[in-house]
Amino acid sequence: MASSGSKESAANNPGLQAPPQVTKGYFMQQTCFRIKDPKISLDFYSRILGMSLLKRIDVAELKFTLYFMGYEDVSTAPSDRIDRTVWTFSKPATIELTQIPPGNSEPLGFGHIGITVDDTFKACERFASLGVEFAKTPEDGFAFIKDPDGYWIEIFDLVRIRDVVKDVA
Amino acid sequence: MASSGSKESAANNPGLQAPPQVTKGYFMQQTCFRIKDPKISLDFYSRILGMSLLKRIDVAELKFTLYFMGYEDVSTAPSDRIDRTVWTFSKPATIELTQIPPGNSEPLGFGHIGITVDDTFKACERFASLGVEFAKTPEDGFAFIKDPDGYWIEIFDLVRIRDVVKDVA
Repeated sequence: MASSGSKESAANNPGLQAPPQVTKGYFMQQTCFRIKDPKISLDFYSRILGMSLLKRIDVAELKFTLYFMGYEDVSTAPSDRIDRTVWTFSKPATIELTQIPPGNSEPLGFGHIGITVDDTFKACERFASLGVEFAKTPEDGFAFIKDPDGYWIEIFDLVRIRDVVKDVA
Repeated sequence: MASSGSKESAANNPGLQAPPQVTKGYFMQQTCFRIKDPKISLDFYSRILGMSLLKRIDVAELKFTLYFMGYEDVSTAPSDRIDRTVWTFSKPATIELTQIPPGNSEPLGFGHIGITVDDTFKACERFASLGVEFAKTPEDGFAFIKDPDGYWIEIFDLVRIRDVVKDVA
């Protein structure tokens, strides 16, 4: 059925509009946040979460570096450094780690990022075995691990989501 | 060429590891942040940025609602409310808007999110015509608009990225 009467319809959600045609090519490319120590964060996001370093950008004169992490096969990345940057920005859902990103000056509202995994319990057992700190364990209903800077990362899988949300979906 | 000697190689990035096989099914699914007024934020993320409301989850007893926004064709979403939730969590790169998300208690490091558009100048002209506030205009080199809560959203396109990063990529 069409969803004109669904919980997600514009009629049921004040403010919601149909996406305009002009935004057809847009996609969500990055989430950026500050880190304290790249060595620790690169280890975490690669070894623990399985992301690759898609691109590193060094801005020498401003003394900062951007690390774009994501779930992409970097063996297919262009070897030219500029082509590789463009390739990176053509990929959705990257995480940009940096020590000084531009951002809101009162960044008091950031919640968390979330990773869909194959099996929440299996993944969390692995995280635990790797010494990852938990904010909430799967037994709490929702699993959240912490990244090295204390950011919460929700861990879920599609089977578990079905079960967890069945009363509120 | 293989990238063993590239700027992105493990050898050149202390801490970086090869992604373990066990994380093969992982993907970056959501970025969550707090909003003040759903009506204003839903309008912004749909009308201005072109996202759709993939799923709304109401948790009545806790008096909060989650709005999952993303660049997906919701006409293909399952009509069953639980199937639709699972469908939403199967999509990468969503934004979860809520008034009380779980998250780090000292969320002082959030930078921004970024949207790849077809044409930065064209998109920014449109944003300006729609009354969107800019943190930085394209003429500044990087374009950042502000969402209704003051979060910075970087706007770029693949042609412009090539030009902007050519000295640092």
